[in-house]
Amino acid sequence: MSMIIVVDIGGTQIRGAAYRRGSLEPVEMLRTPTKGEGAAFERMCALIQSLWPQHESVEKIVVGSPGPQNPETGIIYSAPNIKGWDNFPIVPELEKRFGVQVKIGNDANLAALGEWRFGAGQGHHHVIYLTISTGIGGGVINDGHLLLGARGLATEMGHVTVLPGGPMCGCGQQGHLEALASGPAIARYVHERIASGEISSLQHKEKITAHDVSKAAELGDALSIHALERAGNYIGQALASFLHLYNPTIVIFGGGVSFSGKFLLDPVKASLEKHVMDASYLTDLKIAHAALGDNAGLMGALALGLLPDN
Amino acid sequence: MSMIIVVDIGGTQIRGAAYRRGSLEPVEMLRTPTKGEGAAFERMCALIQSLWPQHESVEKIVVGSPGPQNPETGIIYSAPNIKGWDNFPIVPELEKRFGVQVKIGNDANLAALGEWRFGAGQGHHHVIYLTISTGIGGGVINDGHLLLGARGLATEMGHVTVLPGGPMCGCGQQGHLEALASGPAIARYVHERIASGEISSLQHKEKITAHDVSKAAELGDALSIHALERAGNYIGQALASFLHLYNPTIVIFGGGVSFSGKFLLDPVKASLEKHVMDASYLTDLKIAHAALGDNAGLMGALALGLLPDN
Repeated sequence: MSMIIVVDIGGTQIRGAAYRRGSLEPVEMLRTPTKGEGAAFERMCALIQSLWPQHESVEKIVVGSPGPQNPETGIIYSAPNIKGWDNFPIVPELEKRFGVQVKIGNDANLAALGEWRFGAGQGHHHVIYLTISTGIGGGVINDGHLLLGARGLATEMGHVTVLPGGPMCGCGQQGHLEALASGPAIARYVHERIASGEISSLQHKEKITAHDVSKAAELGDALSIHALERAGNYIGQALASFLHLYNPTIVIFGGGVSFSGKFLLDPVKASLEKHVMDASYLTDLKIAHAALGDNAGLMGALALGLLPDN
Repeated sequence: MSMIIVVDIGGTQIRGAAYRRGSLEPVEMLRTPTKGEGAAFERMCALIQSLWPQHESVEKIVVGSPGPQNPETGIIYSAPNIKGWDNFPIVPELEKRFGVQVKIGNDANLAALGEWRFGAGQGHHHVIYLTISTGIGGGVINDGHLLLGARGLATEMGHVTVLPGGPMCGCGQQGHLEALASGPAIARYVHERIASGEISSLQHKEKITAHDVSKAAELGDALSIHALERAGNYIGQALASFLHLYNPTIVIFGGGVSFSGKFLLDPVKASLEKHVMDASYLTDLKIAHAALGDNAGLMGALALGLLPDN
């Protein structure tokens, strides 16, 4: 039997798994910290080596990682958490090391692929996957194909302008969706309102997170409810534009913040309905939660590995 | 030889042409007014009949028209200028009438296809076509495929929110790109500023058009220059978002307003450079004018006709 080894590089840990073709149950699953002694690349290689089967062949290796990258050339332009991975030719390096085909994909695109093949998006041909956590990212399946663009830089859904002149985004631009509705953006907004004198159950907390805001909203904190409503409103506004641009049959929400419950998702839906230009965009449109949980990265890498090469 | 008959339904006239496979020179070209005596569908059929070759076979008919439509089912949801074309099954009707395969496409998508195959976008695999005239529309080629979405409603590039709470759009929403940067939007802005007391060489003109604004700008009218700058700024802001979403190698501008010259396009480029999140989106990016002129609709329909069926 031939196997596919998949690797998911996250902010805190690198996870790896080996799958037999035709099975969604990993033969083995391992992990190592992302930051630690020695070069991340070497530790990733050691992890792959440990996953290598003794009596079976490996067909390909698939690596998922955050940040901009070019899946055609196999170059990671930059990786947010890994020193030295600027214009890093990860695919050629891994192919040289292991002698098998290697593919890469960014985490949001792979999560979109994974949800489409194995999760909430099964059976759909036009999918928007939107992940809302520390950042906002996305992946789009159009007519059964992952939308990558010329250099693999498409579907950066967190980086569309939703409020000209709005808050600063991590990318250096202003008023992007990520700067208004990501977890840190929600927390920052609550923090700023408290600093300017507003009353909240979170006002004595030293460091506020989106998770705190979500919990406070559930307990009736008006500022927290308003902050989630505000974020949801911008997400719905952007989502209406995404529907006009991609016309999917399903929108899948992933990422920790999207699981904040009705205080975020109800405003998202209300704002989407308010901002969509024609009801036909909502006909047969399903809005769903990501189904793959913690394994989204690995399952997405597996989905990429199972796609026919073109 | 087999022929392809193409029809381009415009606001004022319906144009038709017959092409031999392998030739870009029409064998014949005819036109009829869009509004006039009798049903538009019957006049279109008469035009097709007149184009029908006597001694050659017709392989297919391709019809381009404005407004939302579903190319899969062959239904025109609505046509801005034609009475009675609501949920009109144009493809089944034409196939019944003429007994050959019929395809439809909306005008912006067909112009994108035409520019890609025969015009400014030749050789590119990732194309954004943006038309700026009475409305703002678009078409996207991704990895060599026209991006249509589930119901053919994708790439409505004029209907993304660029200014929340901004001016009313023709679609009923506020702050869409079309409401800020189309020809009528530019003219309306100048009109409003004059009404509120601003000085302009256009202040005694009864009805101001975008063409008037463009000419006045060339003669140094400060308000007109400012109005085009303002529109260009919003187009550049939206275009940056489009690059982040589609990552093309070429952006092609079509439509009368986009030919306003440097008073519009210089601000577009400056705004694009200001709003793009990373210089890599501009690497190898070409910005071009549409090359097909008046024949874009017919050539686009021909391009669709020449695509292999899937």
